[in-house]
Amino acid sequence: MESRKLRAGMIGGGIGSFIGPVHRMALELDAEAELVGGAFSRDADKSRASAAGLHLDPQRAYHDYRSMAQQEARLPEGERLDFVVVVTPNASHFEIARTFLEHGFHVVCDKPVALSLEEAKTLQETAAKKKCLFMITHAYTGYPMVKQARQMIRSGELGEVLKVVVEYFQGWVPFRLHGKGKGSKAWKFDPDISGPSLTVADIGTHAENLAHYVTELEIQELCAQSTSFLAGSGLEDDADVLIRYRGGARGVLSVSQMLSGEHNGLTIRVYGTRKSLFWNQEQPDTLLVRDINRFDTILHKGGPELSEQADAAKRLPSGHPDGLISAFANLYRAFFPAIWRRLHGQEAIPGDYPGIDDGVRGMAFVETVLESAASQHKWIQPRV
Amino acid sequence: MESRKLRAGMIGGGIGSFIGPVHRMALELDAEAELVGGAFSRDADKSRASAAGLHLDPQRAYHDYRSMAQQEARLPEGERLDFVVVVTPNASHFEIARTFLEHGFHVVCDKPVALSLEEAKTLQETAAKKKCLFMITHAYTGYPMVKQARQMIRSGELGEVLKVVVEYFQGWVPFRLHGKGKGSKAWKFDPDISGPSLTVADIGTHAENLAHYVTELEIQELCAQSTSFLAGSGLEDDADVLIRYRGGARGVLSVSQMLSGEHNGLTIRVYGTRKSLFWNQEQPDTLLVRDINRFDTILHKGGPELSEQADAAKRLPSGHPDGLISAFANLYRAFFPAIWRRLHGQEAIPGDYPGIDDGVRGMAFVETVLESAASQHKWIQPRV
Amino acid sequence: MESRKLRAGMIGGGIGSFIGPVHRMALELDAEAELVGGAFSRDADKSRASAAGLHLDPQRAYHDYRSMAQQEARLPEGERLDFVVVVTPNASHFEIARTFLEHGFHVVCDKPVALSLEEAKTLQETAAKKKCLFMITHAYTGYPMVKQARQMIRSGELGEVLKVVVEYFQGWVPFRLHGKGKGSKAWKFDPDISGPSLTVADIGTHAENLAHYVTELEIQELCAQSTSFLAGSGLEDDADVLIRYRGGARGVLSVSQMLSGEHNGLTIRVYGTRKSLFWNQEQPDTLLVRDINRFDTILHKGGPELSEQADAAKRLPSGHPDGLISAFANLYRAFFPAIWRRLHGQEAIPGDYPGIDDGVRGMAFVETVLESAASQHKWIQPRV
Amino acid sequence: MESRKLRAGMIGGGIGSFIGPVHRMALELDAEAELVGGAFSRDADKSRASAAGLHLDPQRAYHDYRSMAQQEARLPEGERLDFVVVVTPNASHFEIARTFLEHGFHVVCDKPVALSLEEAKTLQETAAKKKCLFMITHAYTGYPMVKQARQMIRSGELGEVLKVVVEYFQGWVPFRLHGKGKGSKAWKFDPDISGPSLTVADIGTHAENLAHYVTELEIQELCAQSTSFLAGSGLEDDADVLIRYRGGARGVLSVSQMLSGEHNGLTIRVYGTRKSLFWNQEQPDTLLVRDINRFDTILHKGGPELSEQADAAKRLPSGHPDGLISAFANLYRAFFPAIWRRLHGQEAIPGDYPGIDDGVRGMAFVETVLESAASQHKWIQPRV
Repeated sequence: MESRKLRAGMIGGGIGSFIGPVHRMALELDAEAELVGGAFSRDADKSRASAAGLHLDPQRAYHDYRSMAQQEARLPEGERLDFVVVVTPNASHFEIARTFLEHGFHVVCDKPVALSLEEAKTLQETAAKKKCLFMITHAYTGYPMVKQARQMIRSGELGEVLKVVVEYFQGWVPFRLHGKGKGSKAWKFDPDISGPSLTVADIGTHAENLAHYVTELEIQELCAQSTSFLAGSGLEDDADVLIRYRGGARGVLSVSQMLSGEHNGLTIRVYGTRKSLFWNQEQPDTLLVRDINRFDTILHKGGPELSEQADAAKRLPSGHPDGLISAFANLYRAFFPAIWRRLHGQEAIPGDYPGIDDGVRGMAFVETVLESAASQHKWIQPRV
Repeated sequence: MESRKLRAGMIGGGIGSFIGPVHRMALELDAEAELVGGAFSRDADKSRASAAGLHLDPQRAYHDYRSMAQQEARLPEGERLDFVVVVTPNASHFEIARTFLEHGFHVVCDKPVALSLEEAKTLQETAAKKKCLFMITHAYTGYPMVKQARQMIRSGELGEVLKVVVEYFQGWVPFRLHGKGKGSKAWKFDPDISGPSLTVADIGTHAENLAHYVTELEIQELCAQSTSFLAGSGLEDDADVLIRYRGGARGVLSVSQMLSGEHNGLTIRVYGTRKSLFWNQEQPDTLLVRDINRFDTILHKGGPELSEQADAAKRLPSGHPDGLISAFANLYRAFFPAIWRRLHGQEAIPGDYPGIDDGVRGMAFVETVLESAASQHKWIQPRV
Repeated sequence: MESRKLRAGMIGGGIGSFIGPVHRMALELDAEAELVGGAFSRDADKSRASAAGLHLDPQRAYHDYRSMAQQEARLPEGERLDFVVVVTPNASHFEIARTFLEHGFHVVCDKPVALSLEEAKTLQETAAKKKCLFMITHAYTGYPMVKQARQMIRSGELGEVLKVVVEYFQGWVPFRLHGKGKGSKAWKFDPDISGPSLTVADIGTHAENLAHYVTELEIQELCAQSTSFLAGSGLEDDADVLIRYRGGARGVLSVSQMLSGEHNGLTIRVYGTRKSLFWNQEQPDTLLVRDINRFDTILHKGGPELSEQADAAKRLPSGHPDGLISAFANLYRAFFPAIWRRLHGQEAIPGDYPGIDDGVRGMAFVETVLESAASQHKWIQPRV
Repeated sequence: MESRKLRAGMIGGGIGSFIGPVHRMALELDAEAELVGGAFSRDADKSRASAAGLHLDPQRAYHDYRSMAQQEARLPEGERLDFVVVVTPNASHFEIARTFLEHGFHVVCDKPVALSLEEAKTLQETAAKKKCLFMITHAYTGYPMVKQARQMIRSGELGEVLKVVVEYFQGWVPFRLHGKGKGSKAWKFDPDISGPSLTVADIGTHAENLAHYVTELEIQELCAQSTSFLAGSGLEDDADVLIRYRGGARGVLSVSQMLSGEHNGLTIRVYGTRKSLFWNQEQPDTLLVRDINRFDTILHKGGPELSEQADAAKRLPSGHPDGLISAFANLYRAFFPAIWRRLHGQEAIPGDYPGIDDGVRGMAFVETVLESAASQHKWIQPRV
């Protein structure tokens, strides 16, 4: 047990933000860290108002992430931030994350970490050079039953994995454009802020990461189609990817944000020679296991039959829904001991949280999908 | 109301057959036709035993479909079969169906109707030449809620259809090989009996037909991967197809028979600009309608809000499961009036049952998928 | 294998009937019996029209069940009906069934078999006296997974059964009165036709029968409330029953026909010391088994892990929905060998179909519930 | 916006507690309050260790709630606790809550608030006398879709409510006794700690509260059975209650903790003359609305069609599971403004959180159920 809470700073995530509060709730959930300051907005008044709303020291309400990095770096060890959380729109992730790394801060960053594979690799190198830790919040891997799936596959319980079907289906594009949506998220349609990819970058990276986390399979080559149905600006809002994994397994990964009536439909199915798994993010506390002999088993979060990893990831017993904030908090809970090792001058050891390597692999996936879709759909190998 | 039941004959479907009894139950369900004879097996004793088990006239237990065609054709109008049902393994469909067509019989045939597009076209031409009707039993289109889906799309309720996701997932290959399956269906692994395609021909044609029936979209081009995981003999047991429909919609069609734990998982999702549909063959009496504004509606077979077509396809009220036999029977119920028009010397008019055109389109689909998968996955247009 | 189909006659079930066609389809489904005549309506024209619609011999279209009984009884053995099916409104069941029993016919009768326990006992005695078989169509016990549930309990797999929760919830009363229902079923609100109980007699008997069939528990005493919310005429459309079973298990049985939005919601949950079961008639092909250790198993009709009895009750493999008609047909399939034993002069042996004993127990249940509800809800023992 | 976070103290909830951390997470979730001290255990070392684990000031780690109340009461306004949270076993709720009320602290207390109706009324009077606020954590009413249900009923959308079916089914008793449970919760079987009722007090009060919150119906009289199947000590682990509500609606409330395989199965169904509702705590983000005309609507948390109250209760958009901690936090979020009004010297106004009146009504329910079950199951009116 450590002697104090870790001190976190946030960039972005001010009043009106969806993801900023989620990070704050998640990082504070286990009483192991607390948010103490941030550059919540580039508008100084808004940043101050955000800090005040959180009852933070007004001295630590910045409106410029560079000043924040510089000033925090100058603070003595007992006051200085232990890590920062980057929750700005995509286009600024890279510069902000790099700046804080350069100033020696551990970084938590939303996905996609950057707009290109090259940028992601730069972050990877910078983190290594500065001996800074880097977590990317692929939060869906924090759910207990995702960890259960991973362990069951790792243990061989499924037999050999033959096929992976992963989907991430959302409907916010038509909802915002033609339904009762409130017209926000407009920046996502702007390539200058969102980057060269809308949907593959935004949620395709989550889908790829989930499949990788659960199966530990590596993509050998892929063949994709993508379409811009409603999003305009040439940004794709729909893509389907055929995948050949190393070792012979096959995959289908479909992502879309223009599917009316879908909410946040991230699902994964993994088929092995003996058993298969099905998990659905919208009902995260159960895992369906299907048997070659035609009966199914439903495993419940908190049940006594689960792996150690799944059990440790719950906060509430079975039948008491842990939500996404808890899953998010599980990432932080795995990240904090790694920070403490650094603070104690110890060597880093791998933790069960998504890191910059996941960010690099994700950006390679994005670029490969876009290239395949643009080039008459040939099979292409990701260049990680 | 017609004055008598129609007289049906069957080829194949003897003792131990799964699909033969289904056809018999379906064609007799509404008391509009009855099975009166057949060549249930090439073994004369077995054919006679099958006929006896059904309490049929032993005179009409054939063991050779050619003799059956000849002898039945010679019978006077008041005794002669009105149509035949071909439920033999795939490789013999073509020869048997053609023989009966040539003798002037209307034909019902299981899918795939033939082993090649060319054969399918020959049947199409023969039927036209002999003015014979031809039904292919894509029975899943007989379900009430499939008809409801078709009508909702046709009426424009979904807005413009943008995306179609259809899956047909079975697990009988590993079940038969490594589970507690009884080792039957072995002929399906033999290309001499099954033809050049296992899974795409066997269930891919159902999936393609369902998507076509529901959306009325035409495939412009497709790009496929296929794999032989467990089936051996080089026959594919798994395939994924990316589809571009005429008019701009996109599709993903996945079929597999090697997915442990799957039973008969035929599902379709159709996404429009305003609403989306989801239907699952294993729970056929409901249709999920998802709205751009993030609420769902569940329509139930037998409910008062359904289309006339869906309502007419039920036998039992809502909450009372109609099963697959009823869906099967709906095909026959649509086919019989067409036969009666012929018997009364009237012109044929289109009926709501799958015909030889569906069989031709299905075989074109099979050949195009195999060609795309074999040829470095280029986009290919079906040659119908 | 018997040498011919059994000959069935029907009383009621003419044009426009819901349940008549279900019986006809069910009894003919396995090609072991056929409907050859009936008194389909008390209106001679309607009865003839019904017979013609079924392509039956017009000579056997009666409009008076007494004449039918007399005339059929006079026919030689090779022509005479082997059994009759009574599908008229409740109030006439007793007289019709008794008449045919007195003339020596085996009888199939819809539930409730009579309007009072006394009448039911009279039928029981008459059947015994005349050595006639009597089946009452509690068809829900014909489903494969209901048989599986029964076998699992019988084998002790659940441990000791402690609690039974059975519900039968319908919504047709408000649907007919205030929704888009077509106003039929009006006779059900008329005590002269329906009898002294609406809902408890109509569906409470099904619920009681299902619980008894599955658990084989006997009711020791019960305590009930009942209400007439919408039905008028003082007939109850809603009732809840607390049950003490012999041996210490407890039960709750709730039935209602005035629950808006319900279709045919018959469900049963059986809780044992080790495992529990849940079955839902609207999704009949699965059985949920819940374990003391907090995982669930879903058994599927047709799966290899099922009991012999459940396996024998399927017509289609797993994933291919067998509907209610198949369940209905399973009753007939169990009843026919009993008839054949009689025709062959053999002793009756118990068969897996609901008989007149179930009818007597059902009527005792109805009377006990009504008495308890009317008498300040004291605990009362059924008088079987 | 208030100028600071509220200061909370906790009694009970130390290391190893399930519910203590839930309260801490919930009260801190929105950054409007923080836990600053507590008597986490009667063992001084354990209490200190609990405080240290939460990085609290060791000066505020008490081991005696009386000293805590006295010492905190003496602190100046700027330091003193604003409210306390009582999460000890049932038997001590009353004394602890009363002590803090007497010292002028607002109190949050787990249910049941006391072991008898009389004690609950004493708390009610004490709170009134001391002008202290009292919240009882019936947390399930904090879910967004529960609030949606309440608003739909209040608005008349269901028509007149006719029937309410509420169940709370758990399986921890057999799990702890005979399964892989860890043997904790043993105190719940001890009447000296748990009080005269096990299951009705523990979860029956939640079920009653949920039904009351959603429907706003008042129980006129009830008739109950209860049983001690496995719990021993004569404490009931299973009970069923027939209910007559004022105004004519009927209800069935069933609770049990001995149902193998159940987790935390709190469900409610409310049937109106036009529509019906179904909500299940284990899948809390959806509400099923069933229509008299036989279609269903699924409303999703975060959807644009929801009531203002339901919308305000979400933290994450649709498709992103909010869990029980968020629901818990919603109670606190409604409670805090009431505290602030008191701190600002304003009059109390009703807030959307369960208060001591709910506690009194809950204890009246418990006593009436036990009395009815013990006295030959007569209908009894609750004495509130």
